[in-house]
Amino acid sequence: MTYTAPLRDIRFVLKEIAGFDSVAALPGFEEATPELADSILEEAAKIAGGVLAPLNAPGDRQGARWTDGAVTTPDGWRDAWNTLVEGGWNGLPFAAQWGGMGLPNVLNTAVQEMWHAANMAFALCPMLTQGAVNALQQFASEEVKQTYLPKMVTGEWTGTMNLTEPQAGSDLAAIRSRAEPVGDGSYRVYGQKIFITYGDHDLTDNIVHLVLARLPDAPPGVKGISLFVVPKVMVNADGSLGARNDVACVSIEHKLGIHASPTAVLAFGDQGGAIGWLVGEPHRGLEYMFVMMNHARQAVGLQGLSIGERAYQQALSYARERVQGKPAGWQGEGRTPILNHPEVRRSLMSMKARIEAMRGILYTAAAAHDIRHSHPEPEARQTAAVLEELLTPIAKGWSTETGQDIASQGVQIHGGMGYVEETGAAQHLRDARITTIYEGTTAIQANDLVNRKLLRDKGASLGVWLDEVEGNARTLEGSTDLDLQVIGREIALAAGRTREMTGWILANAADPAKPAAAAVPLLNAMGLVAGAHYLSLGAVAALRRLSEGEADDGFLAAKPVTARFFAEHLLGQVEGCRAAVVNGADTVMALSDAQM
Amino acid sequence: MTYTAPLRDIRFVLKEIAGFDSVAALPGFEEATPELADSILEEAAKIAGGVLAPLNAPGDRQGARWTDGAVTTPDGWRDAWNTLVEGGWNGLPFAAQWGGMGLPNVLNTAVQEMWHAANMAFALCPMLTQGAVNALQQFASEEVKQTYLPKMVTGEWTGTMNLTEPQAGSDLAAIRSRAEPVGDGSYRVYGQKIFITYGDHDLTDNIVHLVLARLPDAPPGVKGISLFVVPKVMVNADGSLGARNDVACVSIEHKLGIHASPTAVLAFGDQGGAIGWLVGEPHRGLEYMFVMMNHARQAVGLQGLSIGERAYQQALSYARERVQGKPAGWQGEGRTPILNHPEVRRSLMSMKARIEAMRGILYTAAAAHDIRHSHPEPEARQTAAVLEELLTPIAKGWSTETGQDIASQGVQIHGGMGYVEETGAAQHLRDARITTIYEGTTAIQANDLVNRKLLRDKGASLGVWLDEVEGNARTLEGSTDLDLQVIGREIALAAGRTREMTGWILANAADPAKPAAAAVPLLNAMGLVAGAHYLSLGAVAALRRLSEGEADDGFLAAKPVTARFFAEHLLGQVEGCRAAVVNGADTVMALSDAQM
Repeated sequence: MTYTAPLRDIRFVLKEIAGFDSVAALPGFEEATPELADSILEEAAKIAGGVLAPLNAPGDRQGARWTDGAVTTPDGWRDAWNTLVEGGWNGLPFAAQWGGMGLPNVLNTAVQEMWHAANMAFALCPMLTQGAVNALQQFASEEVKQTYLPKMVTGEWTGTMNLTEPQAGSDLAAIRSRAEPVGDGSYRVYGQKIFITYGDHDLTDNIVHLVLARLPDAPPGVKGISLFVVPKVMVNADGSLGARNDVACVSIEHKLGIHASPTAVLAFGDQGGAIGWLVGEPHRGLEYMFVMMNHARQAVGLQGLSIGERAYQQALSYARERVQGKPAGWQGEGRTPILNHPEVRRSLMSMKARIEAMRGILYTAAAAHDIRHSHPEPEARQTAAVLEELLTPIAKGWSTETGQDIASQGVQIHGGMGYVEETGAAQHLRDARITTIYEGTTAIQANDLVNRKLLRDKGASLGVWLDEVEGNARTLEGSTDLDLQVIGREIALAAGRTREMTGWILANAADPAKPAAAAVPLLNAMGLVAGAHYLSLGAVAALRRLSEGEADDGFLAAKPVTARFFAEHLLGQVEGCRAAVVNGADTVMALSDAQM
Repeated sequence: MTYTAPLRDIRFVLKEIAGFDSVAALPGFEEATPELADSILEEAAKIAGGVLAPLNAPGDRQGARWTDGAVTTPDGWRDAWNTLVEGGWNGLPFAAQWGGMGLPNVLNTAVQEMWHAANMAFALCPMLTQGAVNALQQFASEEVKQTYLPKMVTGEWTGTMNLTEPQAGSDLAAIRSRAEPVGDGSYRVYGQKIFITYGDHDLTDNIVHLVLARLPDAPPGVKGISLFVVPKVMVNADGSLGARNDVACVSIEHKLGIHASPTAVLAFGDQGGAIGWLVGEPHRGLEYMFVMMNHARQAVGLQGLSIGERAYQQALSYARERVQGKPAGWQGEGRTPILNHPEVRRSLMSMKARIEAMRGILYTAAAAHDIRHSHPEPEARQTAAVLEELLTPIAKGWSTETGQDIASQGVQIHGGMGYVEETGAAQHLRDARITTIYEGTTAIQANDLVNRKLLRDKGASLGVWLDEVEGNARTLEGSTDLDLQVIGREIALAAGRTREMTGWILANAADPAKPAAAAVPLLNAMGLVAGAHYLSLGAVAALRRLSEGEADDGFLAAKPVTARFFAEHLLGQVEGCRAAVVNGADTVMALSDAQM
């Protein structure tokens, strides 16, 4: 099953919803001309469809293999990686100083969407490497940067994030890995890390591990964790590679999905200590992680969008080909493709509408990241920072839950064939299933939304965003277009219900168990409202372009229909979320352990 | 990971919700004394936990294997099957005349729940065999019954259902397999059947295939399909086994889950014709299938309950053991098991409440089946028939969707460990994923609900059931117990919303696409309302027993809490269903093929 990048919709969302033109006009993005952006998207689409997508199913079947401490990636993986290295793709959003292209994050987001959709197991490697580059670029010493960044930006070396330990999953305060100063500025790092994505592989000659560990004088808990850079292979002063460091890949996991992505158990320091260097200041490792977290969480949210798009394309293609029966109300001769069955169409529409909604949310968050870091006005930077912070848990939590559901609906549309592995639909579901877990579970995202985005400022910034959503909805209600009227009415209703939820949480925050019990339903509601809101902006833009006389083959005309479908058929789910919040936590926590 | 049959809840639901005592008092069930029923449940629990459950994960890993036309089941499978044969378990619901125990279907349902929970891939074999026995018992000639039934009732031979062909999935009208009369009362059957569960295996010496095929004079479409019995091995006049019949197992599928259940492609008649015998009258095969369908669909709905229960037990056990952080509002010392985190607890509660709701629906439907067939009064039979018909698509559609969601939440509660296959949580999700597809997809169930249960009698029987639900809700609202008041209020609200949906569908039936587009949301709403209703009956019974002074360690006290959790936290989802129905099918079908 092939993948065709939805270039038209990607361009539409970039321009009409995420405001790409304004982002490209920011200082520092002088390279980001419309022509360059266009040709980058075209070229990325070719690589995604022509190089990465064909490796997706074979990679799943062959999987990453571990032998004698080393991981072998599936056939073709190394060539595909070299294609990215040669095109400079890994450096797209990074500074020219380190060999990057200096292009906006939101453009990189569009490219990464295509990588993940084409081959999620593969795309984790560039994703993790870009994350590591972000960390080093922001916090590492000049020497560390000079040593590692140039080769990581090209992709000649890859990067990893080493957080989890067996007893420390969501609870990073429980980290036990430790680091001892050698005295020459380096450290000896000891400990076992698990679930390390691309923790070992054969794509490159070196891997740069970023490792959370405790210094000897570290205070307990989260304020005693430091960040270290620990290369797989030591780097000599002249930049050439030296001896192996004391980092061993002990095993890789046998997982439900992303079989081709090696998930490693790494042992640091079993042979006397892995040599590493401190990144930034002591004891501030978790703080650095938090700074990078917005980006990393958006990247995983993007996987929800990507897998959803891939699953949709496959399901749509099957629904066009598979002939079964006559649908209700069908007047034509003979049997018809199942695409014409209303219940199949409803499922496909709900996939399509949510995919476009996710793209709106994710690209908006990515553009906010650019504005936050590159806008000349402090006020604009601040506004963008608030928006990015608010949208990030939604982009991650809602998009991954939604992507998973879409992948499951993709299986369903295939009927019995969907359950047969060779069809490929099941792989998308298996791959998608990790996205709601890693980089912070959905519950962690929901708690972030409630604690840091709602309670911390007593609802101020969330209220501003809801004001904007409601203001837009009222405008739509007053428009002359029937679709927009309905969309506006439904969004206003849903936003009001969401406001009732946030009001309840703010009023009941004295008992912290209550907001915590309300968090996931609020996150779901916010995802639905945000999705409808950004879809509505697209609908307005499409109608404007049509009214300006733009020729249309149906692409623009579909936008208000899709937005209205979302508003009429999905947004009502907000009421279920509202009830779950305002009915409180009493029954949630009422049973004893033994009664469960 | 082990499985402990929830005997206490099974007994509670049998007695307080499904009315087992009344069923056991029906003519024909004289054997069904309370003591016998109890000891059957005890013994079944031992076999489920001690024999079947330990084979579940190894069976998944080893899988069914196909070599040279024959299927080998995993290690231990044959011994487990013999345990069922020796105990006479397969014959539990069948007439003593054929060697069965003559016990109620609802008791068999409780036993089958345990089989499926312990090992769904295994339990499909008794499930299919019981289905085949049902068909032969009801429709076959005396000679066919004498030849096959005794050995199928003991389980010495197993049965299969051969419906699907490559071009005929949900659309059975497209069946092409054919049967030609030989002249001696037998037929030669030709054709390829796919997705045949336990279509070949090494558990028994013979397999009795029930096959849908067309006679030479058959009219086209569904009215030209006949049912044949085609043994794998011919049976001699003295009952001994003769030569192999012309049925070949060409291959088995490589599936997402139920790896140990062989899903066969069967070729009938490639060597001159498979010998078979007509079951019942010509051209009435599909009609016979429909008669058996209630039972078969409830059996698959049961898998949703069973997998949900299994996944819940595993997730709960992990949540009790896994220590991570301090939950919001936690006052205790140190870190705590994640069971105490409100967001984890919400997920566990939603699993628990829906499991008990499914059990209420499924056991009620199963008891209605008994009453329908065994009650001496025609009116009571008729009432039970209407109830069973109405509940069946809900029992199948809603329970399988719900079981799948619970299995997915079970993975989620395990965090990263849930994604690692050795943990076992992922197997439940993989296994569950077929249940919404086979025996009629969720959309097929929803169309059955709308077309045959709502539109056919213009809402009469569904209205009667909603009256009962609302009447009960009003009584609860008027009670002195606060939990019951809330439960009653929420059920009344949800029932009203459901009535709005059915009203809309009835009013818009002139265009058949509209009811079809509304079908799945209506099914979801009905599942939620039915679940809350049967939970509320359990809550009332528990409070009654408490008020009568029954000693309670918390089991009875949990019932109103669980029902209230369902009413307050899940029933609000009905509004999302309502909106999706009454907002109509316009946007569902509005886009052209090219716009999708």
